[in-house]
Order: sequence, then structure tokens, then C-alpha cells
Amino acid sequence: MFKAEIFVSLKESVLDPQGVAVKSSLHSLGFQKVSDVRIGKRLEMMLECDSREEAEKQVQAMCEKMLANPTIENYTFEVERVS
Amino acid sequence: MFKAEIFVSLKESVLDPQGVAVKSSLHSLGFQKVSDVRIGKRLEMMLECDSREEAEKQVQAMCEKMLANPTIENYTFEVERVS
Repeated sequence: MFKAEIFVSLKESVLDPQGVAVKSSLHSLGFQKVSDVRIGKRLEMMLECDSREEAEKQVQAMCEKMLANPTIENYTFEVERVS
Repeated sequence: MFKAEIFVSLKESVLDPQGVAVKSSLHSLGFQKVSDVRIGKRLEMMLECDSREEAEKQVQAMCEKMLANPTIENYTFEVERVS
């Protein structure tokens, strides 16, 4: 059994409206020293694979097919054997 | 200048409907070996602070006040000097 940790984030060139909104909320709460807020997703999952290579291949395919939008997002992932 | 990386995730005891939805979508795409999908947020921000301690205090206060819901979420963060 493998555990995958996947990070999906907007590409640097893409405006992050959510990040802009969070930044202005933080400013209104008095956290004036904050800038450049960027927000992404962190996914965790378990994979019943026979090898690390197979698990990594599955995660990559999932990212390409569904978890990340290649036009506007980047993804990175780590796979770890847990049993 | 400091860069903060913040992870906000649902507590283990809390059902993750988004994770359940993603898992069933992945299964329908043929990724049957996936289980226990959990989804959280990853935030990045810059902080114009004078010391690491000040930056860490600011990030903790932001998490407690706004970025994480203490009832259902956990948060962790790392602060790194960038200039």
C-alpha cells in the first residue's frame, strides 16, 4: 500500500482571485504585512499498488486526466510505501 | 522578507465529502486502486516582517482568526526567510 501526496497550484502567470480575496480579508483584519497570497490544493490518497513505479504512474495519470487543469495549473506529488 | 507555506486540512474524524466525490470520479475513470482521498488547502504568502519569530506569530494568528476553522480543521505552516 502506498500513500500519495499531491499538490496542485495555479501557474505563476495565472491570476489567483481567491488569493487576492484572502489577502484583502487578511489586510482588513489588520495583517498589513501580507502580500502575494496564492492558494492551491493538497490531496492525500492511498493506492493499492504492487510497486512504487506503478503507484507513481497511476498518480501521474490521475493528475493529467482529472486532478490538475494543464492549461492553468501545475502539479507535483510524492509517493511513499506505507505497508 | 519571509515566505510562509500553510497547510489546512480536515481533522481525521471529519468526513470529507469532496474527497469522497473525487474518489468516485477517479474510480469511474478506471483508477480502482485509490482509496481514502482527503483534500486540503495549501497557501503561500509573503510577509514583510523583521524576524522569523514575528512572521511565525503573524501566520499563527492568521490561521487562528481566519485561514483555518478550528472546529473541523488542522493547520501546519513553515516560514522561510527569502531576503
